[in-house]
Amino acid sequence: MRIDGRQKNELRKIHIIRSFTKYALGSVFIEQGDTKVVCTVMIEDKVPPFLKGSQEGWLTAEYNMLPSSTIMRKQRDISKGKIDGRSTEIQRLIGRALRSVIDLKVIGEKTIWIDCDVIQADGGTRCASIIGSFIALVDAINNLDHTNHFEVYPVKNFVSAVSVGIVGNQIYLDLNYYEDSKANVDMNIVMTDDDSIIEIQGTGEERPFTILEKDRLFELALEGTKDIILLERDLLGKDAIRIGENKGYIGNKQ
Amino acid sequence: MRIDGRQKNELRKIHIIRSFTKYALGSVFIEQGDTKVVCTVMIEDKVPPFLKGSQEGWLTAEYNMLPSSTIMRKQRDISKGKIDGRSTEIQRLIGRALRSVIDLKVIGEKTIWIDCDVIQADGGTRCASIIGSFIALVDAINNLDHTNHFEVYPVKNFVSAVSVGIVGNQIYLDLNYYEDSKANVDMNIVMTDDDSIIEIQGTGEERPFTILEKDRLFELALEGTKDIILLERDLLGKDAIRIGENKGYIGNKQ
Amino acid sequence: MRIDGRQKNELRKIHIIRSFTKYALGSVFIEQGDTKVVCTVMIEDKVPPFLKGSQEGWLTAEYNMLPSSTIMRKQRDISKGKIDGRSTEIQRLIGRALRSVIDLKVIGEKTIWIDCDVIQADGGTRCASIIGSFIALVDAINNLDHTNHFEVYPVKNFVSAVSVGIVGNQIYLDLNYYEDSKANVDMNIVMTDDDSIIEIQGTGEERPFTILEKDRLFELALEGTKDIILLERDLLGKDAIRIGENKGYIGNKQ
Amino acid sequence: MRIDGRQKNELRKIHIIRSFTKYALGSVFIEQGDTKVVCTVMIEDKVPPFLKGSQEGWLTAEYNMLPSSTIMRKQRDISKGKIDGRSTEIQRLIGRALRSVIDLKVIGEKTIWIDCDVIQADGGTRCASIIGSFIALVDAINNLDHTNHFEVYPVKNFVSAVSVGIVGNQIYLDLNYYEDSKANVDMNIVMTDDDSIIEIQGTGEERPFTILEKDRLFELALEGTKDIILLERDLLGKDAIRIGENKGYIGNKQ
Amino acid sequence: MRIDGRQKNELRKIHIIRSFTKYALGSVFIEQGDTKVVCTVMIEDKVPPFLKGSQEGWLTAEYNMLPSSTIMRKQRDISKGKIDGRSTEIQRLIGRALRSVIDLKVIGEKTIWIDCDVIQADGGTRCASIIGSFIALVDAINNLDHTNHFEVYPVKNFVSAVSVGIVGNQIYLDLNYYEDSKANVDMNIVMTDDDSIIEIQGTGEERPFTILEKDRLFELALEGTKDIILLERDLLGKDAIRIGENKGYIGNKQ
Amino acid sequence: MRIDGRQKNELRKIHIIRSFTKYALGSVFIEQGDTKVVCTVMIEDKVPPFLKGSQEGWLTAEYNMLPSSTIMRKQRDISKGKIDGRSTEIQRLIGRALRSVIDLKVIGEKTIWIDCDVIQADGGTRCASIIGSFIALVDAINNLDHTNHFEVYPVKNFVSAVSVGIVGNQIYLDLNYYEDSKANVDMNIVMTDDDSIIEIQGTGEERPFTILEKDRLFELALEGTKDIILLERDLLGKDAIRIGENKGYIGNKQ
Repeated sequence: MRIDGRQKNELRKIHIIRSFTKYALGSVFIEQGDTKVVCTVMIEDKVPPFLKGSQEGWLTAEYNMLPSSTIMRKQRDISKGKIDGRSTEIQRLIGRALRSVIDLKVIGEKTIWIDCDVIQADGGTRCASIIGSFIALVDAINNLDHTNHFEVYPVKNFVSAVSVGIVGNQIYLDLNYYEDSKANVDMNIVMTDDDSIIEIQGTGEERPFTILEKDRLFELALEGTKDIILLERDLLGKDAIRIGENKGYIGNKQ
Repeated sequence: MRIDGRQKNELRKIHIIRSFTKYALGSVFIEQGDTKVVCTVMIEDKVPPFLKGSQEGWLTAEYNMLPSSTIMRKQRDISKGKIDGRSTEIQRLIGRALRSVIDLKVIGEKTIWIDCDVIQADGGTRCASIIGSFIALVDAINNLDHTNHFEVYPVKNFVSAVSVGIVGNQIYLDLNYYEDSKANVDMNIVMTDDDSIIEIQGTGEERPFTILEKDRLFELALEGTKDIILLERDLLGKDAIRIGENKGYIGNKQ
Repeated sequence: MRIDGRQKNELRKIHIIRSFTKYALGSVFIEQGDTKVVCTVMIEDKVPPFLKGSQEGWLTAEYNMLPSSTIMRKQRDISKGKIDGRSTEIQRLIGRALRSVIDLKVIGEKTIWIDCDVIQADGGTRCASIIGSFIALVDAINNLDHTNHFEVYPVKNFVSAVSVGIVGNQIYLDLNYYEDSKANVDMNIVMTDDDSIIEIQGTGEERPFTILEKDRLFELALEGTKDIILLERDLLGKDAIRIGENKGYIGNKQ
Repeated sequence: MRIDGRQKNELRKIHIIRSFTKYALGSVFIEQGDTKVVCTVMIEDKVPPFLKGSQEGWLTAEYNMLPSSTIMRKQRDISKGKIDGRSTEIQRLIGRALRSVIDLKVIGEKTIWIDCDVIQADGGTRCASIIGSFIALVDAINNLDHTNHFEVYPVKNFVSAVSVGIVGNQIYLDLNYYEDSKANVDMNIVMTDDDSIIEIQGTGEERPFTILEKDRLFELALEGTKDIILLERDLLGKDAIRIGENKGYIGNKQ
Repeated sequence: MRIDGRQKNELRKIHIIRSFTKYALGSVFIEQGDTKVVCTVMIEDKVPPFLKGSQEGWLTAEYNMLPSSTIMRKQRDISKGKIDGRSTEIQRLIGRALRSVIDLKVIGEKTIWIDCDVIQADGGTRCASIIGSFIALVDAINNLDHTNHFEVYPVKNFVSAVSVGIVGNQIYLDLNYYEDSKANVDMNIVMTDDDSIIEIQGTGEERPFTILEKDRLFELALEGTKDIILLERDLLGKDAIRIGENKGYIGNKQ
Repeated sequence: MRIDGRQKNELRKIHIIRSFTKYALGSVFIEQGDTKVVCTVMIEDKVPPFLKGSQEGWLTAEYNMLPSSTIMRKQRDISKGKIDGRSTEIQRLIGRALRSVIDLKVIGEKTIWIDCDVIQADGGTRCASIIGSFIALVDAINNLDHTNHFEVYPVKNFVSAVSVGIVGNQIYLDLNYYEDSKANVDMNIVMTDDDSIIEIQGTGEERPFTILEKDRLFELALEGTKDIILLERDLLGKDAIRIGENKGYIGNKQ
């Protein structure tokens, strides 16, 4: 039995408030257990220099923890004069995850800013950020669609993310902070709704893990991401109706 | 009639959630109209070098706006490499306001960190930050009191803050962003519950104002701060019972 | 009797050298008692991006203390990697004070740089900076006028600034550093020559002050600013002749 | 056939110079195809504050590309004022990889600095950095052993790293820059000599990948890491003799 | 004839105000022609970590130009986020020059801070800074001597600095800005009163110079430094009486 | 006899690898004794703003030491948040040295980036950097010439640099780190192949030096630079054939 009474393969409750703030085109307050993140999407009518004239858009993500989001107060980046290494790593992951499900050619020369600000961190903030940002992104695109009437819908797939880990010798889904701090191995996966992998990251810093463990971790994580996609589908309801239209898309690079 | 239907001397609705997050000793989510701020208080068992051995504590405040809190996305300080000038000014004001009602000698060699993170800015964020932080501070001190059993209660007074301004030729209480952006003159005052002034700041950058206007602005603001103190008293209820005990206190400097 | 032998309502001697340096369009060395500041005005033929095409100018101020200007050597901002919070607050005040008396529409797309570098700080550096910068600004505008022949004179009013404070239970005008370090309450006001207020800032961090004290502080400060305006008028003599021409001006914002 | 004539499952030639510089306790110049990295290990007799008194050591890695290591000159971090996001991500990976094979309790309160400076980047710099740093680390530990006579040998395992990717529809081992720039999916794995996984990172930013593709990528990568471990074993010869002694080690955290 | 009417081998007038500010132990306002620099000396009772316990002192110099000291406004270092390269070079030179004439073993574990802030730059600011700082240093040491009663006097020699340059085909002493901007070759030398060289720096970026030119430049510069030492001796009068006592000193390094 | 067995006037062995990396237009690995530097030249088709439209090019140099290049690990600039003062000084010297032998008018609006990254520092890194960069520059210009067919060859002269110093009472050529750390006086000179001086920098921080010593130091250094030019000529062979064509050049400034 886990500390919060969950089964090994049980997700924490996810609670999402949409339209959480009024200036962003899409904004979500996501709670996953005691992890709480504000995810917003703002869209700007310009692109970085390397995309000027390309007719393509850009999507970039920033991730930040409020000083009071952790047990010990976390000093602000600006006070230290540099961005936290872990935050850099996470915001790059969020950016990749969301870029993988949006067709930036359809967007045109716009920049999509994803901002994830962690209000309370109790494990799994990167996954909660991806889920919350995805909902906010769909809302933002739908808002944009009211004026732009996209012929092809820019969002190609649902995206979902979950963590798994080995604590003691048990494999758990969706670690909270207490479990995470005791984990020997942890893995995050980011998946689409057609069971494709966008990202897999497994780390055995405390103890290397076997190939068999890798497979079991992945399997459990896969199960978790499917549940999350059901939840997203449910939550978005008819707002998700155009996701999946855009199957002919091959990749930004080609 | 004002854009949001208020009377000239009417405050926006203030809604406060206490114990908003779990790691901070005090934490508040304050909504004042559409302005939304997370105010937290964390207490650390050390002081800056200049206070070592002094038996006195320190209180410092940081103020920050989330990128999506404003109409145009606000770039993070760390991306620009320097803290915003306006934020510096505001966080210094918040720090002075709260230091003025706490007896840092009673606290002992501890640092009180006030963090105000603006989720949505619709005017009056500095005043909402002071109000929210005050509530969070009382909660934090009460939590500390459970273990410390302060002989003298560290919080000496209620503190309240409000903005007033001249829009067109009308004097309004508690400006929202729309009004603020049209104001010629604006003034913020910070008051205690015994009608003493902690801070008065009035600026007529757009148009200098007369001495008479100053007096009328102050009068209206005073009325507003009294209402806010009632509200704070109401909200804190018996948690405020020890505020005011500490009347013999003269000032940190002497 | 005050430590330097002044009456309570007596200003320190102000001594101003105009054309102190040769590259700036206006430059002043101001001594107010032992406070010494170099104030210079340089004008550049471009504006920040947000004003491009607006036909309006911009005025910005920077305030800095030399390392040897204080009792304990003050580390340079660049060594700490960030601008001092107090300096930020002061330079924003100086900027607002001088923007309030200049018609930036008349200037056209130019940036006016005000630089205040404190050589020796003995209290009241922000007020001395405003006074010195005002004289330097008039000189700079007059120099510009020789080639530009402004139809409407850009400087609309005289501006003056002074500090007052409560030391012990006495109210003093124009505090020096010794008095300032003992003050419970201090207030700075910035006024025009037609008795309008540009800025009022009063702080009771050490001890909140009563409404009556506020009124008495303001009254004494008002008296001080009038004396300073006489002094400015005297000093500028016929160089001030066009100030006041421009009465129809309403405000940059409208 | 690949652009450089290799088979799909063929590694690029790896050429390693040990003792490349004279001040570092271990230093390696590694060439993997046209990728060239200087990897050095320096050991300092102190630890970060959070480890003081713990009797445990610390290992940290820094990764940097020389400006001329890429096709377009890469601006130095110090000129931009911030560390590159990709470098942050990579140096954290290198740190985790090497921490996973060293027993920091045996080292005692020392900090091991790993520095990877890329002289020429032609794909796979993070993997080459891990391989080169591992060799340098063994050399450094052996040098330290001459004076310290470790009872338990600190290096617990061989570590190896390789990249794989999907280019077009082909799966390739050890991508060079040309292939990497065309890849839809790429994966890096870090393995020990007993077939345990330290890290797996797969990204399908350009195109999500299937579970089957993930398995085939992993399989090919696994094959590659085994070849690299043979190569390391060969290269180190009798210098590797004590690696593996330390099997009882469980993990730094416990 | 030179633009300011001087002979080729003629120094600009040097005018020095001692005790220019009141907080620094030594402070000088030096004017050399239109070059104006404030040079101050403050002494702190601690040393950098690498000297703790060494019984030796430290001397460090900082050089900075006020924004209005140059024809085009010079942006402050803190606005650019980095110290100017030229300033770095100059402050290192000033530090070396003054360290070479002071016996830091006699001073004991103190740090001497030299601050040179250029009010107006019209060529030769580094030399004026050295001269001004030297006078301020002697004043500071004498002030310290009142309480410390040094057995050996810490200042070993007079130090003097001057620039020379080739403009057109003429060799000029003590270039002003106009000449400097036209110079092909310029050289700065720093000398003691016993004709020893502390520093020689000659640069022919615009045109390499011959060995003969080097000798003639040096000769003219030497003449200039002798005149400056006379001037310093004259100015200091009996305050310089102990300089030269300390002949047995060999060097900080041995 | 010197520690490495050299005569007083003997250079350390210089070993140069050209085309050391593949992306830079010119790249050199230079070893001078145990000093090892990578010098690269990259050319970009744009110039800084102040040269836009001038038809002239720009050359700038950056110098950096790898963390493991020194006995004690050297912290990276980006970790300290500022560029090292000594590095600033050296990179400015390298820039001046190379600008003095290239005709930037012939280059046109291009920026030449010189990067010197020190792999191992054993004294004389600035001189080795100049020599290595010169060879790399000639290679880069020759590569550019293949497409540009310069009518006038941009490189006007050979450039050479060497250090000399007084250790004990002996004057030595080309100091290694051991000698440098014991030197009382050191001097660097930069010369062209027609015996003209580009730069002379002599410092007697530890002990001022006599005019006679200066002359003897210069003489020995001159001898050293001549040997180095022979070596460069030898190494470049026919690749240097066009150097010297461009004798009519007078200087960038005129």
